[in-house]
Amino acid sequence: MIIQKSTNPRISSFDPNNFAFGNTFIDHMVICEYENGKWGEVKVVPYGPLPFSPAMMGVNYGQACFEGMKAYKDKDGQVFLFRPEKNFARINKSAERLAMPAVTEEMFIGGLKALVDLDRAWIPEGEGMSLYIRPLIFATEEALKARIANKYLFAIVATPAKSYYTAPVSVKISDYYSRSANGGVGFAKAAGNYAASFYPTQLANEEGYEQIIWTDDSTHEYFEESGTMNVFVRINDTIYTPPTSEKILDGVTRDSFLQLAKRRGIEVKVEPIAVKTFIDAQRNGTLKEVWGVGTAVVTSVFQSVGYNGEKLELPRLSNEESFALTLQKDLVDIQTNQAEDPFGWRVLVEKNVMETV
Amino acid sequence: MIIQKSTNPRISSFDPNNFAFGNTFIDHMVICEYENGKWGEVKVVPYGPLPFSPAMMGVNYGQACFEGMKAYKDKDGQVFLFRPEKNFARINKSAERLAMPAVTEEMFIGGLKALVDLDRAWIPEGEGMSLYIRPLIFATEEALKARIANKYLFAIVATPAKSYYTAPVSVKISDYYSRSANGGVGFAKAAGNYAASFYPTQLANEEGYEQIIWTDDSTHEYFEESGTMNVFVRINDTIYTPPTSEKILDGVTRDSFLQLAKRRGIEVKVEPIAVKTFIDAQRNGTLKEVWGVGTAVVTSVFQSVGYNGEKLELPRLSNEESFALTLQKDLVDIQTNQAEDPFGWRVLVEKNVMETV
Repeated sequence: MIIQKSTNPRISSFDPNNFAFGNTFIDHMVICEYENGKWGEVKVVPYGPLPFSPAMMGVNYGQACFEGMKAYKDKDGQVFLFRPEKNFARINKSAERLAMPAVTEEMFIGGLKALVDLDRAWIPEGEGMSLYIRPLIFATEEALKARIANKYLFAIVATPAKSYYTAPVSVKISDYYSRSANGGVGFAKAAGNYAASFYPTQLANEEGYEQIIWTDDSTHEYFEESGTMNVFVRINDTIYTPPTSEKILDGVTRDSFLQLAKRRGIEVKVEPIAVKTFIDAQRNGTLKEVWGVGTAVVTSVFQSVGYNGEKLELPRLSNEESFALTLQKDLVDIQTNQAEDPFGWRVLVEKNVMETV
Repeated sequence: MIIQKSTNPRISSFDPNNFAFGNTFIDHMVICEYENGKWGEVKVVPYGPLPFSPAMMGVNYGQACFEGMKAYKDKDGQVFLFRPEKNFARINKSAERLAMPAVTEEMFIGGLKALVDLDRAWIPEGEGMSLYIRPLIFATEEALKARIANKYLFAIVATPAKSYYTAPVSVKISDYYSRSANGGVGFAKAAGNYAASFYPTQLANEEGYEQIIWTDDSTHEYFEESGTMNVFVRINDTIYTPPTSEKILDGVTRDSFLQLAKRRGIEVKVEPIAVKTFIDAQRNGTLKEVWGVGTAVVTSVFQSVGYNGEKLELPRLSNEESFALTLQKDLVDIQTNQAEDPFGWRVLVEKNVMETV
């Protein structure tokens, strides 16, 4: 691994109490180029633009996938990643489906640790604060041929992330648009999946809904995901979430919620959620909570659900009554080293990693 | 429009008899940037890389779509575009579905004409030769947020294209993978659609098939497209092609073939093609031809079709017997000004366009 430190670091002008999430980038990034059938050396370099032609295959044919993950700083200044091996495994599943080369552990886990260690000063401290980290792979070959590319870039970029308390949102159950096909790429964090969701979401926004609960494209009778998150439904005291499939992302937060719920003795059923079952439960009062989970916001609680032109209100539960918020706290406490970690999910980022390698 | 001519043109080293299609770029490209809610000035500049960060939204969230079109040079050196207004309309349909801003006629048609005129020396002459032109739009904003981007680039790049006589190919009818969802983006020339098709195509290649005939994702009982082309089937002397929909691209070559077939008095039916009907016709000998059509190769004739583990052979027709090859010749003759153009499809590219504007 090659470390090329910035000669013009911006960290001294970074105000952890006043920054824009998503647009503020840390001083460095990881890059690694694929050519002639193999990955080159992993490099940590100053964050910034690289030269790409508009004929770059990544923006012409969409071979591009990513991961979203976070690093957390505890009150003693120790820095932790959360289940990075899950993201490492998943980016390679996405890459395989998009006919892109797999990345190595040295590139992904090694690159993450080196970058986060070097720029640890960029990780804001305090409740809900974190560093949002974006590993990605995209095709860089310049060619106007619809075929598998021969050149790729693996990169890791990162932005400080704030505590974002998210107010409960209204969501619409999709009855026309869909995000994934049978035999398609819905399970992958493929760039194209996100672009495809923007327009339907914009239409839902115009109807007064913040997000869409995606349903299967063949019948629109079963839940798939919500916005860019996995979806959970609580009927009485049982939690339901759809099984992962080639249409549904195998979310790290989803998996963590399932394990945390089981630890608390909450009954969990991983099975298809029919829209009809959901609507019936809302009407007969047994529907208690619906929420989405994902790395970025952890939990997004829903206050109302649009279906067939009707806006169905959901109960308002206190933090103690809410399974969503209880499990969220369990998770965040582990992520930020405020609770024991019986699962072995936290991964300490050692200081001066590179000197010790 | 701003024209910035290359001070280091490569045209003198271009050998029209020996070049690589897709990797050889003409001296200039068109670019136009979108920011603060509007497109800036259209520029023709030397072809080459631009600075983009790996946090560019186009490769993170896949807002990217393109067009494929060609310019042809006749024996007198006159240069023509083919139905460019169709591509102009379609890129804006793609852009709308991907929540990207529409491009203007000045950017698209004006940019095309200025670029093709300036680099007309790059258009190879002779049978089947052309300039393949790639207009595209992609998100350029640097941000790690899954939302509609605020910055875009529109570009037009181009590569000389050879006569590629394509040998008849074997295709596999897809029984698992699919390229589009109901309520999805299959009709758009969205970058992500292509990446999603590479892996299934690679698997088909390993089974001895060059392409896939895509079927509907819900039942796999109906044809959609073939490879990256629209598909035509001839049973007895009737031509069938599926109707366009939100799952099927509204191809310019497809539409041209339909009009040319009608002009010849060939019966054309635009209706769903059931796999069962197709297989029955193959078995009872009424299936005469199957082929794909698209801008890049015009026509790809199929010699065998894989279905359910079986490789079904198709008849070998002479050029005169073949509707596919007859209509291809009709089309190419119009495109290259070797025949009258009763449809008004050819658009002459005037010399020194920019001086006259």
